[in-house]
Amino acid sequence: MPQGQVAVVPQDGLTTRQRRNRPLLAVHTGSMKGKSTAAFGMAMRAWNQGWSIAVYQFVKSAKWKVGEENALTALGRLHEQTGEGGPVVWHKMGSGWSWSRRQGTEVDHAADAAEGWAQIKRDLAAEAHRFYVLDEFTYPLKWGWVDVDDVVETLVHRPGTQHVVVTGRDAPPALVEAADLVVEMTKVKHPMDAGQKGQRGIEW
Amino acid sequence: MPQGQVAVVPQDGLTTRQRRNRPLLAVHTGSMKGKSTAAFGMAMRAWNQGWSIAVYQFVKSAKWKVGEENALTALGRLHEQTGEGGPVVWHKMGSGWSWSRRQGTEVDHAADAAEGWAQIKRDLAAEAHRFYVLDEFTYPLKWGWVDVDDVVETLVHRPGTQHVVVTGRDAPPALVEAADLVVEMTKVKHPMDAGQKGQRGIEW
Repeated sequence: MPQGQVAVVPQDGLTTRQRRNRPLLAVHTGSMKGKSTAAFGMAMRAWNQGWSIAVYQFVKSAKWKVGEENALTALGRLHEQTGEGGPVVWHKMGSGWSWSRRQGTEVDHAADAAEGWAQIKRDLAAEAHRFYVLDEFTYPLKWGWVDVDDVVETLVHRPGTQHVVVTGRDAPPALVEAADLVVEMTKVKHPMDAGQKGQRGIEW
Repeated sequence: MPQGQVAVVPQDGLTTRQRRNRPLLAVHTGSMKGKSTAAFGMAMRAWNQGWSIAVYQFVKSAKWKVGEENALTALGRLHEQTGEGGPVVWHKMGSGWSWSRRQGTEVDHAADAAEGWAQIKRDLAAEAHRFYVLDEFTYPLKWGWVDVDDVVETLVHRPGTQHVVVTGRDAPPALVEAADLVVEMTKVKHPMDAGQKGQRGIEW
């Protein structure tokens, strides 16, 4: 929780206001729950600012994220109807690959992921949105389906004021290095340790 | 991310389904951003299930959480108008105390916090909601304004299927012990380290 105190006043020739409004590249990583959930929570703040929000969901599942998708897209519809908040688009990348790589072939998944990343690049170049969630995007990076150097280069040099949040385990070091904000979600205790499986409304 | 594998199958005489639908007590703690944000993200999933949601905000600020408040209460209004999702109530506990204790007197703050907790106890006893966010609730516990033993006792023995998420730094050990799920948000990198202050749409 910010108290408004900064550790260092940088010698970058910028005013506090200029620095304050710099576009943010955030990474939510670590082995524990909350990485995507916190990103979608941030999207609520962005919505409230009237910003255009885009979610690119890189891992598919029949049920995961459906709650967040329905709630955020409902906020997007509210914007269309009343002008309140901002617009929301939710992209599902690829046609059916999951992080466990159990469905389809690896070649298909790699092509789907590359196509998803190509769309993000186009949107960033066009400054199509103000707040981006690249959900579970670390997995295609980890598996070599999308080139890490290309991602870092593109994100670092993105034009305008576009905030980007990348989520997923095992964020590559070059991405962590490039990011302004990196949070690691670590496990203290999880119900699965006590034999409890995921449940509706909590896990999805 | 759950793969459906549990570490231990408990000898508690419950079926997986019974265990699956057990009410969850979650704690989001640690020094880093994302504790409250992830709780509000969970609230989006709860909303999508049509559950009644209550937020009790224990730390006040002119701007923090206004984005989440506006987005979640907008979802609550959508429920009233269309029946989609679930109802949302957002309580601000006390009249003006903040976690930095800079405003008002400590006596006032303690009374406000105790009153807030008394309301939560009444709501839990009445099974008024299905999903509760006790936001920044660890601070009144830490400062001795609300009794930790009373909180743990009440939460552990709450009736029905009421999910509760408590957020804030320095969660007391007895609360961590009682919780089913505990996530610690730890800092890898924060823009304030580089001299950047909080910004609209990102921090609030």
